[in-house]
Amino acid sequence: MPAYKAPLRDMQFVINDLLEMEQHYRSLTGCTELSADTLNAIIESGAQFSQEVLAPLNRVGDEQGCHFENGKVTTPDGFKEAFRQFGADGWQSLSVPESEGGQGLPSSVGMIVNEMTGSANWAWSMYTGLANAPITCLLAGGSTEQKATYLPRLLTGEWAGTMCLTEAHCGSDVGLLKTKATLNADGSYSITGTKIFISGGEQDITENIIHAVLARIEGAPKGTKGISLFIVPKFLVNDDGSCGDRNPVNCGAIEKKMGIKGSATCVMNFDGAKGFLLGEENEGLKIMFEMMNQARIGTALQGLSLGEAAYQGSLTYAKERLQMRSLTGAKNPEGGADPIIVHPDVRRMLLTQKAFVEGSRAFLYWLGQLVDETDFGTGDEVSKKEAEDLLGFLTPIAKAFVTETAFESTNHGLQVFGGHGYIADHGMEQIVRDTRISMVYEGTTGIQALDLIGRKVMGSGGELLRVFTKRVHKFCEANKENPALSPMVEKLAEVNREWGELTVSLGEKAMQNADEVGAASVDYLMYSGYVVFAYIWARMALVADQKINAGSQDAFYKAKMLTAKFYFDRLLPRTKAHAAALLSGAENLMTLPESDFAF
Amino acid sequence: MPAYKAPLRDMQFVINDLLEMEQHYRSLTGCTELSADTLNAIIESGAQFSQEVLAPLNRVGDEQGCHFENGKVTTPDGFKEAFRQFGADGWQSLSVPESEGGQGLPSSVGMIVNEMTGSANWAWSMYTGLANAPITCLLAGGSTEQKATYLPRLLTGEWAGTMCLTEAHCGSDVGLLKTKATLNADGSYSITGTKIFISGGEQDITENIIHAVLARIEGAPKGTKGISLFIVPKFLVNDDGSCGDRNPVNCGAIEKKMGIKGSATCVMNFDGAKGFLLGEENEGLKIMFEMMNQARIGTALQGLSLGEAAYQGSLTYAKERLQMRSLTGAKNPEGGADPIIVHPDVRRMLLTQKAFVEGSRAFLYWLGQLVDETDFGTGDEVSKKEAEDLLGFLTPIAKAFVTETAFESTNHGLQVFGGHGYIADHGMEQIVRDTRISMVYEGTTGIQALDLIGRKVMGSGGELLRVFTKRVHKFCEANKENPALSPMVEKLAEVNREWGELTVSLGEKAMQNADEVGAASVDYLMYSGYVVFAYIWARMALVADQKINAGSQDAFYKAKMLTAKFYFDRLLPRTKAHAAALLSGAENLMTLPESDFAF
Repeated sequence: MPAYKAPLRDMQFVINDLLEMEQHYRSLTGCTELSADTLNAIIESGAQFSQEVLAPLNRVGDEQGCHFENGKVTTPDGFKEAFRQFGADGWQSLSVPESEGGQGLPSSVGMIVNEMTGSANWAWSMYTGLANAPITCLLAGGSTEQKATYLPRLLTGEWAGTMCLTEAHCGSDVGLLKTKATLNADGSYSITGTKIFISGGEQDITENIIHAVLARIEGAPKGTKGISLFIVPKFLVNDDGSCGDRNPVNCGAIEKKMGIKGSATCVMNFDGAKGFLLGEENEGLKIMFEMMNQARIGTALQGLSLGEAAYQGSLTYAKERLQMRSLTGAKNPEGGADPIIVHPDVRRMLLTQKAFVEGSRAFLYWLGQLVDETDFGTGDEVSKKEAEDLLGFLTPIAKAFVTETAFESTNHGLQVFGGHGYIADHGMEQIVRDTRISMVYEGTTGIQALDLIGRKVMGSGGELLRVFTKRVHKFCEANKENPALSPMVEKLAEVNREWGELTVSLGEKAMQNADEVGAASVDYLMYSGYVVFAYIWARMALVADQKINAGSQDAFYKAKMLTAKFYFDRLLPRTKAHAAALLSGAENLMTLPESDFAF
Repeated sequence: MPAYKAPLRDMQFVINDLLEMEQHYRSLTGCTELSADTLNAIIESGAQFSQEVLAPLNRVGDEQGCHFENGKVTTPDGFKEAFRQFGADGWQSLSVPESEGGQGLPSSVGMIVNEMTGSANWAWSMYTGLANAPITCLLAGGSTEQKATYLPRLLTGEWAGTMCLTEAHCGSDVGLLKTKATLNADGSYSITGTKIFISGGEQDITENIIHAVLARIEGAPKGTKGISLFIVPKFLVNDDGSCGDRNPVNCGAIEKKMGIKGSATCVMNFDGAKGFLLGEENEGLKIMFEMMNQARIGTALQGLSLGEAAYQGSLTYAKERLQMRSLTGAKNPEGGADPIIVHPDVRRMLLTQKAFVEGSRAFLYWLGQLVDETDFGTGDEVSKKEAEDLLGFLTPIAKAFVTETAFESTNHGLQVFGGHGYIADHGMEQIVRDTRISMVYEGTTGIQALDLIGRKVMGSGGELLRVFTKRVHKFCEANKENPALSPMVEKLAEVNREWGELTVSLGEKAMQNADEVGAASVDYLMYSGYVVFAYIWARMALVADQKINAGSQDAFYKAKMLTAKFYFDRLLPRTKAHAAALLSGAENLMTLPESDFAF
């Protein structure tokens, strides 16, 4: 297994140099004060926990996996203890308002910590991520009493939670869900139905599990308009806060999966389990969407986390592994061969990872800032609205583009190891397997693409896109004379303009034929991702250039400039292929009759 | 697990309509007569064996994997019996000359059968593929006595074999190998050293295992010039052909891998094992290259096989799974939702698989024809030379491009299943894991790319490329007036011309800086692959168009035309991204100092 080391230098670059987080935190209304030093101390503490506690459990988790017997789930060795320590150290309550018993830090701080726990051990991190699900739902829609009942022990990590949405016949199409809620005399509901793919649905880590469950109240409208959200605890909670009667919600099986084997993926049977309505009847999806937006960014973070892990593993290996001579003459003449990092194609694979990973970090930490601004506000309604617009627009891009490119990255990581990459001992193949689910859950890439183009871009008449492209345009205007940046700025301006043109052209076609939207969707999303990353990389290059001009001798800044150049030279041109594909229209997809797809 | 059904209709299209195999076989000098009916009977028999015997063992193989204890390897249930049946039915000797005890059929026939066994169960197929290794080496370099000793039982499948090349410190860089051979008084050699990644190095399937081993005779030159090839049997063979003394070659461990778990990947220790020189001293690589070329095409075939398996699984699912409504109105109004094949993006994933898989089949069967021509000749030395040139040029493209696109395809297959694709029960994630190794073994994509651009294209002064582009040019000239084909022909001619220009430009840069070759290599290979597939798809479209014009009402031909159109519209434009990346030069890869790659 590659040893994980939190990439503090790059994190600090993004936090301090690029995003000026200290000033950002100061600008938030009513946010706990958070100096750069305090933030740094939090991060270093998270780094230590990730490196020392979580990373050593990563291979263990994959090898042992979870076991199911008689309704009980056994998690891998050490998972329980690590979870308890995480809760006891206060990590689970980091970004919960002080008024609700949390530490009141902005979400962006939690995201930064989650990157590190995720790199060290994604399967384990699933339990903390899902414990967050009922917390978010309760904060968004819980009554004072409900919050008092469940939050305290969720925040300490004594209890965990789940998000129960999917049913066997109902994945992306949530309107099909059948799980039934019947009103009881005491105002609670009896929940009956079966949910699948429930991460952490059952485990031996916490005393109680608080399920956030979507169900349909008897007589409610069909489709998405009749869905309500319930809290269903594994153990009903006594008045004193202790665990009472066992609620009839049981794990029927766990799934054997490609990866994240330490995370128990459960079939959950609700047999008239007692549930408590959160918020209003038939308005469950509103609250759930709040959580799903968080979960989408959390899944994008999985891409960043695992991309980083693969990059670290393959970079270390590329410096150590001796194989063949450089084509321009031996670089390690005393050795039997040169380290493979001398070979241009190995560097291509390393730089591709570096560009995607560092681009993802800057992008997602920036999204974290936008989340903070929408949570707290900065006293300026215009800028809050802009933050909301940007966040809505960028979230599907983050979810899909960061995970898709992370899957590419982790595969480059494996490839750098050659045959050894395929062998479990080195841990690289586990990273690939663990990453693969990120393109699927919390809405597949295809679903994100429909959200982007249909709901966000077309749905706003192009306004959400313009909020972003204007920002890019301003950046380009401001920096086009900078000699170090101008080649990048020129390319950025070009794709930014083309993006608008492609959108207009698509919008026209979509008015004739609704299938044009779906036919263009994923290529449009990928195109968008490459432009967003170009903007992010140009911003990073600008900051690095400023540091260099100010006399910094830190090689880090030069490496940042060169990685930006690599991104623009080698990765951004992929927009050409996506543009051509998305312009090719729906006809080449829709003409072949279903019956003639055959073998 | 998706049930496997041999895609006989498409196979027959390639065999009969596109490649006119019957005439091809008739043209080969001294080849056993092979009518279309006989070939069809062979294929149907192979289909039956694959569907009924091998496919049911595929999940079993993945679940059970191989086990190692006290030097012994246990393979999954049923693998041994299937292997015996395969041998007893004569499949192992199919393409071995009659004069050597085989059935004398051309290699292309074996490849067609191997596609099917590979789709049904790739891990199992590894044992037959590796049994082929000593057969090929013996045919290429064995003495009459050596052939008489080993071939008979290898051909019946009573014995199997391996190819022992890799050592822990020596993968792509074979010149580093250390395994030592010391001449014995009786003319045999004592072989000492450790080989890794030896597929089928130990197993419980056959009585004896015949290892083909690369080693260095004491005093031989360093590097690749001092490598000899030996036959090292697990059991020495008595004069009567029975197994005699146990040779000290032992399995020290087996690897835990990402996939192909039913195939035992062994560490093999040679402790003064008795080995027999094949061919001349220090000329082992020549013979081994013969086998490696076969193995590269065999690995390309793995891409085709598993791509087909994933396509079948996801197509079946896409027709059954109901989720959401078509954007252009319900297509299944009585059902709760429409089958997901109505959604444009699902069709994009299916058609991408279809285009890559069917393109790979046509491409690889054509390579099979070229292998036949180089094996047998057609009495025409000019066309034999052309076949050799084309084969040398196309083999690295086949190995790398078919496996890379197959990995993409199998991932689309998984993605069509959504969350269910990640679950082992459905078998889709196994296909992805099993496919992943194909981009690594028998020379990684990077190694194939260096072979293509360095050895084949630059090494021939561009001549091998011209042999191919001339052929494409002729095709374009002949068909540019055909209204059904002209849009494709126009695009094909354009990339064919650009390919030549890119090559010239690269050649010029490479004279200044040898790293330019490596820097462009993989993008150049991928570019080449897309052009080759464009040629293959245009050829298929031409045949389909002829059938339609001749009055055929078979929907198959229309589907072929539409898939060709899809390929040209949606996949071929990826050349634009590869061209831009490869033209960007070595500087963006080579400037960053090794020490500044850091985290």
